[in-house]
Amino acid sequence: MRIITLTTDFGLKDPYVAQMKAVILRICPEAKIVDITHEVEPQNIMQAAFLLKVTYHWFPENSIHVVVVDPGVGTARRPIVIRTRRYWFVGPDNGVLYPAAASDGIKATYEITKKFWKPSHTFHGRDIFAPTAAYIAKGGKLNIILREIPLNTIVKLEISKPKIRAGVIEGLILHSDNFGNLITNIREEDLANIGIKVGDLLQLSFKDKSIKIPFLKTFGDVSRGKTLCFIDSYGHLEIAVNMGSARQVLGLKPGDKITLTKFS
Amino acid sequence: MRIITLTTDFGLKDPYVAQMKAVILRICPEAKIVDITHEVEPQNIMQAAFLLKVTYHWFPENSIHVVVVDPGVGTARRPIVIRTRRYWFVGPDNGVLYPAAASDGIKATYEITKKFWKPSHTFHGRDIFAPTAAYIAKGGKLNIILREIPLNTIVKLEISKPKIRAGVIEGLILHSDNFGNLITNIREEDLANIGIKVGDLLQLSFKDKSIKIPFLKTFGDVSRGKTLCFIDSYGHLEIAVNMGSARQVLGLKPGDKITLTKFS
Amino acid sequence: MRIITLTTDFGLKDPYVAQMKAVILRICPEAKIVDITHEVEPQNIMQAAFLLKVTYHWFPENSIHVVVVDPGVGTARRPIVIRTRRYWFVGPDNGVLYPAAASDGIKATYEITKKFWKPSHTFHGRDIFAPTAAYIAKGGKLNIILREIPLNTIVKLEISKPKIRAGVIEGLILHSDNFGNLITNIREEDLANIGIKVGDLLQLSFKDKSIKIPFLKTFGDVSRGKTLCFIDSYGHLEIAVNMGSARQVLGLKPGDKITLTKFS
Repeated sequence: MRIITLTTDFGLKDPYVAQMKAVILRICPEAKIVDITHEVEPQNIMQAAFLLKVTYHWFPENSIHVVVVDPGVGTARRPIVIRTRRYWFVGPDNGVLYPAAASDGIKATYEITKKFWKPSHTFHGRDIFAPTAAYIAKGGKLNIILREIPLNTIVKLEISKPKIRAGVIEGLILHSDNFGNLITNIREEDLANIGIKVGDLLQLSFKDKSIKIPFLKTFGDVSRGKTLCFIDSYGHLEIAVNMGSARQVLGLKPGDKITLTKFS
Repeated sequence: MRIITLTTDFGLKDPYVAQMKAVILRICPEAKIVDITHEVEPQNIMQAAFLLKVTYHWFPENSIHVVVVDPGVGTARRPIVIRTRRYWFVGPDNGVLYPAAASDGIKATYEITKKFWKPSHTFHGRDIFAPTAAYIAKGGKLNIILREIPLNTIVKLEISKPKIRAGVIEGLILHSDNFGNLITNIREEDLANIGIKVGDLLQLSFKDKSIKIPFLKTFGDVSRGKTLCFIDSYGHLEIAVNMGSARQVLGLKPGDKITLTKFS
Repeated sequence: MRIITLTTDFGLKDPYVAQMKAVILRICPEAKIVDITHEVEPQNIMQAAFLLKVTYHWFPENSIHVVVVDPGVGTARRPIVIRTRRYWFVGPDNGVLYPAAASDGIKATYEITKKFWKPSHTFHGRDIFAPTAAYIAKGGKLNIILREIPLNTIVKLEISKPKIRAGVIEGLILHSDNFGNLITNIREEDLANIGIKVGDLLQLSFKDKSIKIPFLKTFGDVSRGKTLCFIDSYGHLEIAVNMGSARQVLGLKPGDKITLTKFS
């Protein structure tokens, strides 16, 4: 058994994802395909890179992670494979694979040279990335489909980090989840850095507003409808409303900037 | 082959479901994972209990049903396993498993004692429930991860029944389907109870509104765009708009309360 | 391993799709089930027929394609199976299977005669089509569940073709995808027919509007926010906006008529 995961911005109303799965099963019938998500915001490379980075490492070793968030499809951007310490990553050379791959430890980078069949101009997910993943899953000879390229030639994207100065953290909303919880780019160590610990009251500023929110352990620590923040299962600071949507209540969304400081 | 089903309120835009599947496949690579739904309304335990109850029994015997609709995550509520006559149920001890489990016949109830790895405060689906299901699927020794607890200590939720007094039925929206039809907890016998029969005009009240709707046999009995109610294939009263969405037209959603009385 | 694909208008918030999968796995535990889409517009047979036709042939030979878009459920319309050169198709006799099946080459047509269990009036997907597909996947004796019927007795739907006269193509929007791209029923050969080639500027008319759009190879050939058209991975002419939604920008949707001519 070999696992292939899929992360795309294709949504589920179209048959694009099914066509990728069909191609995979044609080449490697024993592959086990798992959807990470197909609801990345259209062409949002940073969001896809973030979702991949917080998820890839939960899968068994040697899983093959395919990402198709690819605004440059049909242009000269290369289709690539990254071999890391424990996993494989397959997708466009636009940086989307980089944060996950780098965090696992990159061993080699390749350009995909194999034309499985006449690739369409617009659907490399089906015509290049899915068959490449299936070919790797099947244990095919790599030098037939890949050509090693220097690591310093691929696009390197970083998940943006908060700025910290004089006791103030300037951060960013990276993602809002199904419940309207707001996932920031601020991590536990950033808070520790300026002496913030569980139980503290924080000042959260954004746009022209400024509110106080407690930094706690979990939802249940505040009553229904109250705003709080806590370290989530990604290891990121998350802003939430108990039994409600922080996105709606605060009017914050991915891409928005926030500042945090200890209230005193 | 061993089937594990998943029912959550996580939606499909986040990678939470994929992380649960990753953990399952790490522990039990041969598990077959089937999604029941991930679009339970956020934290709506009653809706999840209803959807599980009408679906679990279609699966092969020994399937393991995991439900993660868990507003109490991070509090003292216990993670539990229920062994029934033909199935296994895994989830939080908040009643969500109970209606399905009770209808199949409960044989034993357990608290999950195993810490698979340091559980996060907020994602027991990935950190406790998924690995427990995978461990059971794999045929692991149960006394290593479970401790039997008395049946009378677990939370017993019933699919809520309407209150009937003085010719008025107080009910609840249990579920809204893909077409926007509203499935209530009111049953045929409840209507008969206060003398309502097919052809009657009813007064439906909710929030600050009150409207008249006919109680008929099926959609075709009203013209396009008209609201009606009828007994559906579950034997429940369903509120619908012919060729439209009752959810949108009326502004009602699962969890909302309604009252019904015969119009005169 | 045997693949069963599912195409329905059930959506993913209800447990209907899971109930179909449960029934399949009960009869044929080794079946590999792949979702094509469950977000066909309610009861839109033409859209489902189109999505099936552009997708079925990517799957391995002998895959079994089940479609449940079935406004006539509960009426006298027959449940059927079509055996083609390389595949099986299972669904209602309303034409939805026909364009795909005919394009592969029909070898035999059957009515499903087996009552697996008491069929409900409203859910033949679970009660007839899913168990039939599973039974075929399992290699069961066909004459126990099927009765051969003449090909000329089944409903024949065609994906509508554009009209071409005097250098003008009259076409139709068949589908709009997750990005708001508009897939037309116009094919590469229709354009060639009136001398249109990549690089040409076209006049697109619809409703009371008329705009000029370039016919190019791919998105990247125009700047952000610009409208273009190109031959997509379906082999159909697609109208799109680079980094935007053509559906929103142009106000066009499935079912709308368009005319195209070479601009001069």
